[in-house]
Amino acid sequence: MNRVLISADSHVMEPVDLWTRHLPAGLRDRGPRMEVRGGATCLMVEDLVVRNFSTLARAEERAQQSTPGDAAPKTFSMGANDPDARLRDLDTDGVWAEVMYPNLGFFCCFHIRASALQVATARVYNDWVADAFIGASERFAPAALIPILDIDAAVAELRRVAARGFRAALLPDHVDARPYNDPVYEPLWATAADLSMPLTFHAGTGRSQTPAHGPGGAVINYVITVSSPLETVAYLCGSGVLARHPTLKVVMVECGSGWLAWALHAMDDAYREHYRWVLPKLDLLPSEYFRRQGAVTFQHDPIGLANIPFTGDHCLMWGSDYPHPEGTWPRSREVLNRQMQNLSDETVANIVCRNAAALYRFAVPHVAAVA
Amino acid sequence: MNRVLISADSHVMEPVDLWTRHLPAGLRDRGPRMEVRGGATCLMVEDLVVRNFSTLARAEERAQQSTPGDAAPKTFSMGANDPDARLRDLDTDGVWAEVMYPNLGFFCCFHIRASALQVATARVYNDWVADAFIGASERFAPAALIPILDIDAAVAELRRVAARGFRAALLPDHVDARPYNDPVYEPLWATAADLSMPLTFHAGTGRSQTPAHGPGGAVINYVITVSSPLETVAYLCGSGVLARHPTLKVVMVECGSGWLAWALHAMDDAYREHYRWVLPKLDLLPSEYFRRQGAVTFQHDPIGLANIPFTGDHCLMWGSDYPHPEGTWPRSREVLNRQMQNLSDETVANIVCRNAAALYRFAVPHVAAVA
Repeated sequence: MNRVLISADSHVMEPVDLWTRHLPAGLRDRGPRMEVRGGATCLMVEDLVVRNFSTLARAEERAQQSTPGDAAPKTFSMGANDPDARLRDLDTDGVWAEVMYPNLGFFCCFHIRASALQVATARVYNDWVADAFIGASERFAPAALIPILDIDAAVAELRRVAARGFRAALLPDHVDARPYNDPVYEPLWATAADLSMPLTFHAGTGRSQTPAHGPGGAVINYVITVSSPLETVAYLCGSGVLARHPTLKVVMVECGSGWLAWALHAMDDAYREHYRWVLPKLDLLPSEYFRRQGAVTFQHDPIGLANIPFTGDHCLMWGSDYPHPEGTWPRSREVLNRQMQNLSDETVANIVCRNAAALYRFAVPHVAAVA
Repeated sequence: MNRVLISADSHVMEPVDLWTRHLPAGLRDRGPRMEVRGGATCLMVEDLVVRNFSTLARAEERAQQSTPGDAAPKTFSMGANDPDARLRDLDTDGVWAEVMYPNLGFFCCFHIRASALQVATARVYNDWVADAFIGASERFAPAALIPILDIDAAVAELRRVAARGFRAALLPDHVDARPYNDPVYEPLWATAADLSMPLTFHAGTGRSQTPAHGPGGAVINYVITVSSPLETVAYLCGSGVLARHPTLKVVMVECGSGWLAWALHAMDDAYREHYRWVLPKLDLLPSEYFRRQGAVTFQHDPIGLANIPFTGDHCLMWGSDYPHPEGTWPRSREVLNRQMQNLSDETVANIVCRNAAALYRFAVPHVAAVA
């Protein structure tokens, strides 16, 4: 495959002391931080343990002693937070550009309950990632963290990051205390549309990533987490958000694409079959708004690709998930070649490059330059 | 289409005073009952309003005055609870046999918090539906309500209903307080396997059917409710329930089938990619257990049918959802002809008849008898 590839889903690893160094003094002891709790190294925010790294390390150690099956550990970079090292990793993988999401901020920011702390946490991340990556290369498009507890603050941060050159903004996949059909979000949708800033909803944000415990947890939690953005699609399409803001663009990230054809069908079925109870009535079917304004990202999803006759190829974007272990780095081209061999050139180009280039305003080089 | 059709998902309407007449005297005032609350007719259980029929009636009235779009109200029977009238409705629809779920019991039973009341509520329904339908015709296979708060009671009721001639048993789709990967359920799985009693999990049971409120609710709630059985599939496959009980059969009901190919893929992806954290390790991939022991029912789902290359046709069963307004009665043959025209005869026969006949032990007549 001799093409320009854009990963619409990568991650960047923040310095572990980012917030303890840069939050205002009065907020530092409750902001994102590493703490040892009962002998375990934990990522904390406020009084909440959001990640226990010792448990992860022990599980890893146990796993090394068990039968590895076909899941032998890959050698992977830890997601350099140095732009030059990161560009080398991209080159190794044959990927030209990427949309980058946080790692620690991703786990922490949307669990914060105090609005002032959430705003400050987001700003510290956004300033750091902008300083490090925006300007370093046009190949980097980091997504800004948008605080969501206070809508005025969300709008203000959206305007601020747009002015700083961000081309994507991250909201939590779910806000269960105030779901996305609440009219309170209208100024946020309007501002994003006005700024031509795509709003991205990353799987695994805003809810626990580990709702299941005990036997099968790793399988169950993955399925629940990656499928839950289909609810977000229903909220945004069914409630008329996309209808009222026809230039707003929304992206569900790292959720796979195999559920999308079915979700679009199910929304339309509900709209037609329960029409008498549907409010608001819409000019188009719910699915038509998503096809016009929405997209999902996937790494490896033969089901989603087989369902392109139902979804079209304009709402699919590939992402490597670099540097996460379940991502496709450094074999992205191999994974893409394998899963896309039956698709037309045009469709492949849309999915691996053009859709992301148009949405996130990447100036794509002539293919010869990256061949 | 000149075939024997079996609906793997229909409903029966209980008499509204079923429980107030038949529950033991000490339980009647907390059991399922109609009560007027603030001028509204409500279905109650314990102190919980599970359905406000006045709100539904008002929404219906409002809707009659609005533009009906392509969802003009259908004329439908209210689901006769008289076997002869019901057989006439089946004949009108060209359906030979059906697996029948409750209506009021469906809304109520799994919200009950007191185990003794749940057991008694289930027994009253099971006795009524057995007396009315089992024996009346081999064309009826009602599913028994299984109380789930007390596992010993669940096992006892499973044995009792098997002896009464039931060929299907209904569990809630979700038990969030004690999910299905909990080892406490082992005796229930073992007993069902031992009795060759398929366990069915109907979408919309065990959780609120209306998690979303406000704009778009009808669309959002439908999508959330019908997609949530994919979690149940992950629990049963990922935790090893199906692996440990290789003759246990499980069915997700009224959930559509368009998400299944993706859910099977996602489970396997999680199993492979997160192998080092997976417990228990399984002999087969999670999806292979579902293909061997699981099924889903759908009414109208072009996505699910297009994905048969991934799922196979042995885990799909059609259901009419008679007598619900979103069901296919009385146009089931027309709906089936339209959606199945590109499938092989063999596949159609499996989906509309053979899979259900084998699972629920219907003796299918020669096609000439129902042509």
